[in-house]
Amino acid sequence: MMDAVKVGVLGLGTVGAGVVNLLARNGDEIARRAGREIRVTRAAVRNLEAPRECATADIDLGTDCHSIVTDPEIDVVLELIGGETEAYDLVMAAIANGKHVVTANKHLIALHGNEIFAAADAAGVVVSFEAAVAGGIPIIKAIRESLAANRIEWVAGIINGTGNFILSQMNFEDVSFDEALADAQARGFAEADPTFDVEGIDAAHKLAIIGSIAFGIPLSFDKIVTDGIRRISADDIEYAAELGYRVKHLGIAQRQPEGVSMRVHPTLVSERALLANVEGEKNAIMVYGDAVGATAYYGAGAGAGPTASSVVADMIDTARMMSVDPAGRVPHLAFQPDQITAEPVLGSEDFVCGHYFRVQVADQTGVMAEVTRILAERAIGIEAILQKDPPRDDEDARIIIVTKTAKEATLMDALSHIVALPTTRDGVVHYRVAEFED
Amino acid sequence: MMDAVKVGVLGLGTVGAGVVNLLARNGDEIARRAGREIRVTRAAVRNLEAPRECATADIDLGTDCHSIVTDPEIDVVLELIGGETEAYDLVMAAIANGKHVVTANKHLIALHGNEIFAAADAAGVVVSFEAAVAGGIPIIKAIRESLAANRIEWVAGIINGTGNFILSQMNFEDVSFDEALADAQARGFAEADPTFDVEGIDAAHKLAIIGSIAFGIPLSFDKIVTDGIRRISADDIEYAAELGYRVKHLGIAQRQPEGVSMRVHPTLVSERALLANVEGEKNAIMVYGDAVGATAYYGAGAGAGPTASSVVADMIDTARMMSVDPAGRVPHLAFQPDQITAEPVLGSEDFVCGHYFRVQVADQTGVMAEVTRILAERAIGIEAILQKDPPRDDEDARIIIVTKTAKEATLMDALSHIVALPTTRDGVVHYRVAEFED
Repeated sequence: MMDAVKVGVLGLGTVGAGVVNLLARNGDEIARRAGREIRVTRAAVRNLEAPRECATADIDLGTDCHSIVTDPEIDVVLELIGGETEAYDLVMAAIANGKHVVTANKHLIALHGNEIFAAADAAGVVVSFEAAVAGGIPIIKAIRESLAANRIEWVAGIINGTGNFILSQMNFEDVSFDEALADAQARGFAEADPTFDVEGIDAAHKLAIIGSIAFGIPLSFDKIVTDGIRRISADDIEYAAELGYRVKHLGIAQRQPEGVSMRVHPTLVSERALLANVEGEKNAIMVYGDAVGATAYYGAGAGAGPTASSVVADMIDTARMMSVDPAGRVPHLAFQPDQITAEPVLGSEDFVCGHYFRVQVADQTGVMAEVTRILAERAIGIEAILQKDPPRDDEDARIIIVTKTAKEATLMDALSHIVALPTTRDGVVHYRVAEFED
Repeated sequence: MMDAVKVGVLGLGTVGAGVVNLLARNGDEIARRAGREIRVTRAAVRNLEAPRECATADIDLGTDCHSIVTDPEIDVVLELIGGETEAYDLVMAAIANGKHVVTANKHLIALHGNEIFAAADAAGVVVSFEAAVAGGIPIIKAIRESLAANRIEWVAGIINGTGNFILSQMNFEDVSFDEALADAQARGFAEADPTFDVEGIDAAHKLAIIGSIAFGIPLSFDKIVTDGIRRISADDIEYAAELGYRVKHLGIAQRQPEGVSMRVHPTLVSERALLANVEGEKNAIMVYGDAVGATAYYGAGAGAGPTASSVVADMIDTARMMSVDPAGRVPHLAFQPDQITAEPVLGSEDFVCGHYFRVQVADQTGVMAEVTRILAERAIGIEAILQKDPPRDDEDARIIIVTKTAKEATLMDALSHIVALPTTRDGVVHYRVAEFED
């Protein structure tokens, strides 16, 4: 058997303890597969006195991250401290010291991956990040390796478990956003400050990574159009359901003729589609390749066990890649570094998809004719129409329309004209509609 | 850029043409990812005059497979002739000549993989077979690499698209098995001789491979308990539906305390489970690992494009592994060759699962009490009961029972006593029930 791979861990919280526990429990099975032992020899923590969720007797425990990333005995640095600045400095220092790195830090990779991978390529080391996207689901490997023969047309996924849990509760338990969020927090699915999850920022971090490895473009977090789930009302969930849709919070990366669109937003999905039926804190991602067609990947998107599963898989891969000539390794962003091209990332006006909108109007003869005329003049097809009485008001009517695929700029132009009608009472509620082939 | 990988193809039918077409269409994109070109330089066909589904101008086309597997210019042999004997001889000859091999031949791997991989290890070459299981779904890589940190507890999947198409038709179109089969044949989903698909043999080939890489056991095709879908009646599909189940044809590999069970059979699956909702010719596989929990993989299980997607991914991986010290490669059967252990493969008497059975009885007071007493005496719990009038007979009644998890030997003992009751009219219909956590 080859020598053990020696791992130094930065941060020994829930995920770090999960990794140590997994290696302790399955070490023999892992060595049977990997042909070598994966051994955590050092770990750095903030507070040595804090209680640990794992045994640390065999680990040299300290508080100095820097002494780990510079330790000549360490083969692989596992970065689990999260956040941006400190993690960046430590990962860059590890690379400069010739260490391979495994990280679960989506924030770090989405914002600084381009520099990190360039530094790693220059240093001849590997930075792995399977756990950064969708926890235990091996989506990075699937796109980078298994679908490498395909031109990826689109990727669409439920990549934030907190948000999906909240929407599932709103869908099935008939609770408001605030109630569902409080429930998620009580169950430990949502942080005390849920901003990153409910505003879609966490999902956008992951989507930046997915888009890059799918399309061969640089990480482009700042070009992602991001909308959260806080403003979703129970009314729209109900109307969508009547029309045969569920409201899911999706990350979507899609090739269009003029560039790629990358967006995180509430999305109406046909109730028969696979993604519509992924409930609770689970994640699922569909990837459409020109040869393979639609494929899907499902599992736990967070948690100590699933994240540790991906982290340790990355360590085993890293151990295998150590002895490989860097030119023969799987490229960090799926494409060879000199083959990454900055394709245009489209703004929302260029999105092409179906649209759902709701507008409150005076309940008068001819209003529907006006609204549909405005759509027809712009060649926007109608997929479904619903007219409902608004709650606590019987002088108005609510018109809910799902359109066929249309360019968003065209749809927005139509909506501005609909809002300007004298019979229109209220602003417009607008969501995008996905029509994915399973 | 590194040198092109030179591939010799044995068999240029639908899949072979799919590979050539995919390399032609996406060659640039593939080279952007792989860092080198994958080039089919030679192909052997049975009949040079037959029409081809791909361009062959750049391919040295001949009829002699042996001259390809011995050609010093060829790096990788792609075996697509199918079947057992000839494919075996050619693959072993390719290995003996130091060629890496990619194959989509599940039959070959399931029956002869143990010898083939031993020969490949001895020769220092790689034999890849992602396309042999579930077509375009990257299930081999997921289990061998992505879940390598897990102790795999079970794998359950829809791994024969023909059978799933037939069952979907029976479920939703209210047609008989024979009608659904004829439909599948008309659409090209089923062969003229559908034996391998409808008897479960094709699925058992795939399950042998899955079980081996999941559990670290030798390929054990001949120990798989296999039952087909021909005997499934529309009545049982309807009763199952009334009880909240769909009948699916699953391949299941499961750890039990005394060994592993590997089985292919019609299975009742809760209608809310992910696998219950995979329809038509699609495949889906769930893998449960102790760290990651339940994961699922979905996509097209057959067809030129999906199969070519997996074949070319294997070629890219092979190109990467060529320069790797064999000790650092991913082992053929996921575990290091000296770490494969012959765990007991259980017979059906040791299966532990839920059970569905139906028995026809005289419609007399006390019969249900007798049946349920026999179950209770053996500590077999009841999950659901249904009593129905049989078609065209109102003197009898049909009792349909779904049990809780029970050892199959115990259930069979109960059934033999139920059949022996004087009030029992007919033999028993029995199916197994899956209760997978999504």
